[in-house]
Amino acid sequence: MRITLRLIGIGPGGPRQLTLQAIDAMADVDAFLALDKGAVKSGLLDARREILEHHAPQGYSVIEIPDPPRDRHPADYDAEVRRWHAARADLIARILTGQVGDGGVAAFLVWGDPALYDSTLRIADDLAARDDLELSVEVIPGVTSASALTAAHRIVAHRIGEPIHITTGRRLADTPAGADGNQIVMLDADLAFRHTADADDHIWWGAYLGTSDEILIEGRVGDVTDTIVAARAEARERIGWIMDIYLLRKTRS
Amino acid sequence: MRITLRLIGIGPGGPRQLTLQAIDAMADVDAFLALDKGAVKSGLLDARREILEHHAPQGYSVIEIPDPPRDRHPADYDAEVRRWHAARADLIARILTGQVGDGGVAAFLVWGDPALYDSTLRIADDLAARDDLELSVEVIPGVTSASALTAAHRIVAHRIGEPIHITTGRRLADTPAGADGNQIVMLDADLAFRHTADADDHIWWGAYLGTSDEILIEGRVGDVTDTIVAARAEARERIGWIMDIYLLRKTRS
Repeated sequence: MRITLRLIGIGPGGPRQLTLQAIDAMADVDAFLALDKGAVKSGLLDARREILEHHAPQGYSVIEIPDPPRDRHPADYDAEVRRWHAARADLIARILTGQVGDGGVAAFLVWGDPALYDSTLRIADDLAARDDLELSVEVIPGVTSASALTAAHRIVAHRIGEPIHITTGRRLADTPAGADGNQIVMLDADLAFRHTADADDHIWWGAYLGTSDEILIEGRVGDVTDTIVAARAEARERIGWIMDIYLLRKTRS
Repeated sequence: MRITLRLIGIGPGGPRQLTLQAIDAMADVDAFLALDKGAVKSGLLDARREILEHHAPQGYSVIEIPDPPRDRHPADYDAEVRRWHAARADLIARILTGQVGDGGVAAFLVWGDPALYDSTLRIADDLAARDDLELSVEVIPGVTSASALTAAHRIVAHRIGEPIHITTGRRLADTPAGADGNQIVMLDADLAFRHTADADDHIWWGAYLGTSDEILIEGRVGDVTDTIVAARAEARERIGWIMDIYLLRKTRS
């Protein structure tokens, strides 16, 4: 069975951060697949529906895919992630063969860019490896939350000529000296910079970037850490979920 | 004199990689400023004019700003870059006060994203610091060439959970061990990976991403280096300029 699977990067949150290429890619989709991240992310699901209502005027079909159960604190992190991806691939393959059908086009709308800390492309690779599907995968790049963060703060991500290290809260403490001049940190519910940064380092933090809930805080780590911790907790409580990111810059010694 | 200066990220090359937000931002611009990078980049100037013809239907004015002379091999790289930026800022301030005027909106169209290896935001900071201008700076994020590269190759930029290091050809050899698992390398006319990568590392290379001239090569470094070197030299000769980027992945030992 031949199926086109399109991964469409839709940017970090604002409906105007869509590219024309992403809109083009929505035009002939038979079914949009949505991975259900649970009710806490319902704000994100609503935003995705709003995008479809504006840009898929031919009418659209959304198939919600329930999330298989996942161990969030496994002994072997990589193995658990791989097992969880395989379970999702099985489920999606059944949906593609049963509900999209031969010659059909299915698509995922992916927050930000599909290449950055998103598992959809890995699912597509798992699906493409199956014997029961002849899958043609297409990827549409999107604006990253890192770009939305630096644009909102009106800063360049690095001092002249310097490198940038993009990492996660989980890995932040592992960044080697010499690579930690400019770090962009994603997926960090614990605000791990509190344990790694010097008080004189500078942080630019942002949440709900590109949306009407956007919050921006920046300053010397020693001065603004408490403000960020409080703002994050308050917003998460009030809105029910949070997506945030920050840039951490080492002060030159 | 109050002036709005807008830096609009327009993505890495394809005219459909513009965001709706970027198009919105072009609507009320009085003058588009273009830094003249010389005749070799004329393909890029043409692409920018094409974008304006499509998306600034109210008519548009482009002011080309000649590039002050620059020492490409200075003893002190940072100081020379700063001196060169200051010379440009003087010139642009004269243009803003003389040709855009009080209450006006000027804009730069910036390739890719304004936060990544682009000097326009540093120029804006220099301008904002001047006493003769009351400058309001706005930044519109764009799709990066890094996202265009990974989308074209249909890959995630990292293995599960790993960090990504974004650097330049000039700095590639300085990446510390432990940060070199996934490196995205920009501004590398010398293909510096030839001196830093192991033969078993994997490379995904791309040039003219998102345009009809796009070239993609990927494989084991030991297998594809000569192919990349030859393709790059041939395309640069034929087209007259080249913009390329690559992702280098260390094979796990």
